[in-house]
Amino acid sequence: MNRFAALVFVSAISLTGFLPNDAIAGSDAELIESAKEYFSPLPDAPEYKQDNPGNAAKIELGKMLYFDTRLSSSNVFSCNSCHNLALGGVDNSSFSIGHKWRKGGRNAPTVFNASLHIAQFWDGRAADVEEQAGGPVLNPVEMNASEDLVLKRLRSIPQYVDMFNKAYPGEKPSLTYKNMAKAIGAFERTLLTPSRFDDFLKGNQNALTSAEKEGLALFIDTSCVICHNGVTVGGQAYQKFGVFKKPDFLTDKGRFDVTKDEDDMYVFKVPSLRNIELTYPYFNNGAVWDLNEAVKIMASVQLGVELGDQDAGKIVTFLKSLTGEKPVITLPSLPPATVSTARPDTN
Amino acid sequence: MNRFAALVFVSAISLTGFLPNDAIAGSDAELIESAKEYFSPLPDAPEYKQDNPGNAAKIELGKMLYFDTRLSSSNVFSCNSCHNLALGGVDNSSFSIGHKWRKGGRNAPTVFNASLHIAQFWDGRAADVEEQAGGPVLNPVEMNASEDLVLKRLRSIPQYVDMFNKAYPGEKPSLTYKNMAKAIGAFERTLLTPSRFDDFLKGNQNALTSAEKEGLALFIDTSCVICHNGVTVGGQAYQKFGVFKKPDFLTDKGRFDVTKDEDDMYVFKVPSLRNIELTYPYFNNGAVWDLNEAVKIMASVQLGVELGDQDAGKIVTFLKSLTGEKPVITLPSLPPATVSTARPDTN
Repeated sequence: MNRFAALVFVSAISLTGFLPNDAIAGSDAELIESAKEYFSPLPDAPEYKQDNPGNAAKIELGKMLYFDTRLSSSNVFSCNSCHNLALGGVDNSSFSIGHKWRKGGRNAPTVFNASLHIAQFWDGRAADVEEQAGGPVLNPVEMNASEDLVLKRLRSIPQYVDMFNKAYPGEKPSLTYKNMAKAIGAFERTLLTPSRFDDFLKGNQNALTSAEKEGLALFIDTSCVICHNGVTVGGQAYQKFGVFKKPDFLTDKGRFDVTKDEDDMYVFKVPSLRNIELTYPYFNNGAVWDLNEAVKIMASVQLGVELGDQDAGKIVTFLKSLTGEKPVITLPSLPPATVSTARPDTN
Repeated sequence: MNRFAALVFVSAISLTGFLPNDAIAGSDAELIESAKEYFSPLPDAPEYKQDNPGNAAKIELGKMLYFDTRLSSSNVFSCNSCHNLALGGVDNSSFSIGHKWRKGGRNAPTVFNASLHIAQFWDGRAADVEEQAGGPVLNPVEMNASEDLVLKRLRSIPQYVDMFNKAYPGEKPSLTYKNMAKAIGAFERTLLTPSRFDDFLKGNQNALTSAEKEGLALFIDTSCVICHNGVTVGGQAYQKFGVFKKPDFLTDKGRFDVTKDEDDMYVFKVPSLRNIELTYPYFNNGAVWDLNEAVKIMASVQLGVELGDQDAGKIVTFLKSLTGEKPVITLPSLPPATVSTARPDTN
């Protein structure tokens, strides 16, 4: 089913009141079976790309680079500044602050589980986390560096030269911009957050509370699953924001800016709902801070369903069961610069 | 010996060529004995203040607060932004970038081992790390928050309310600005970085290389130890910057701005040399990036000694043995805000 057909399907089921299945009435076992039609648990181990195997040296290097502020021209920002692993892999701001207090144009999405999305960025303009990682470093409203600056800095630090050699054995040169992004991507692939919902999908009926199960059934029956499905409960497709009506706060044209195709007007990658409790504010522009309100808006503009406070609350109760266990991250110890390392631009 | 007497003493020994002892000529055992006259090893465990005992709940809370960007009005900066534990407890910039890209007026000093200094800040205007921790939160060129804003934010987050109750049992209210700073201070007291130099002071003659021992002997014999002594190899006294001549780059009046006492003109707390390899750029204004150059400047302006490149290099070789083992820090998982939490000011 292509995207346009899916839209028609969403519209049809919503208008007719037809629901994918009647999850509310069933037993726990039936709810698990129903949920498994739409969702799958996180993989037990990170999944790497064939051209970017995740060896230990590369993952450690990627973690160091992820936390290294020297990837920004000012030495103020690291990947972790906007995709903060102490928070929900985000900065909990509508728009991130970057170089010279400039602001980004879209809400920073979470890095947790992002490697399992179909593509990266709100508009999917990067194929994977490896491609994504090189972007913000160069963006003048984010880290404001250049490939040349970053490579000069990293090559001036002997420990980094060694680590790139270990992470990319046999490659000459190993310390390239692409390999920097690949190491960050490999690290990001380890950032999975299994939750009780995964245990439930694997058959443990007691992994969710009764209220969470009720919310899950309502989430399915309300058709939220049409878009928010798969291993990341979203992140698996593109969708027009405002199928039934365009939200007042929506001005961003989404994928249209990438493809210039009218069909892509206001189309975004469907956000993952894993850790949604932690990744406020919501939507492409961080316009909404209250998850209950966000659920009601989505039901209304995407499905033509006006949810009451009680039903929205039930769905939110389920959504909070998607808050996962973050991996334990030990802060890396970053190697010192040398006298020849390019200094921060703090003007 | 008061500060003024110390200055006269420094001048006298430097002008006459009298040296505290003849460390270069001795055996390893003699060098250890000589070093023990000036230095002491780091304590084996953190030392807490009587009015701020370091219970586990408080230290964990302090770590969370240290990494929590919500202590800044913009949600951009945490303590760790300028005192980065992945680096040398600093940001390796001459002046830190703060709210709205404003700049601080002095180089951010390292937090590692800082609890063992006689006082905090370059001018010693805070008595201890507990008092210091509350300062940058309120500074308009740093985190730009107010006590009221921070307390409202923390009190709106149930997990923080619980953690303050656990960290300060019996205190009502437990969640106060002072207790916030005390928790951060308690965490900072754990940030000790024992090095091979400590092993040497404890009697292990092989803990330093021959070149490092030679550098240590020269460090003692050149009289650097007059100021850079004690458990933190500095940080134990105030001293005029520019005893023999005022450095060209010095405009900051130091403690004079605090005390308005002419004797305090250009007087600063002597910086600790522990981890000096990691805490570039050097001096109150971060004017010098090369440790060799910094050593030569200090010998010249403080001791009236013009060191050659070779001798400066020997001292630097010793100084690098002061780079310690950082404690393993696992990134905290910070609790989500609630709908009532004050949002970031990113204007």
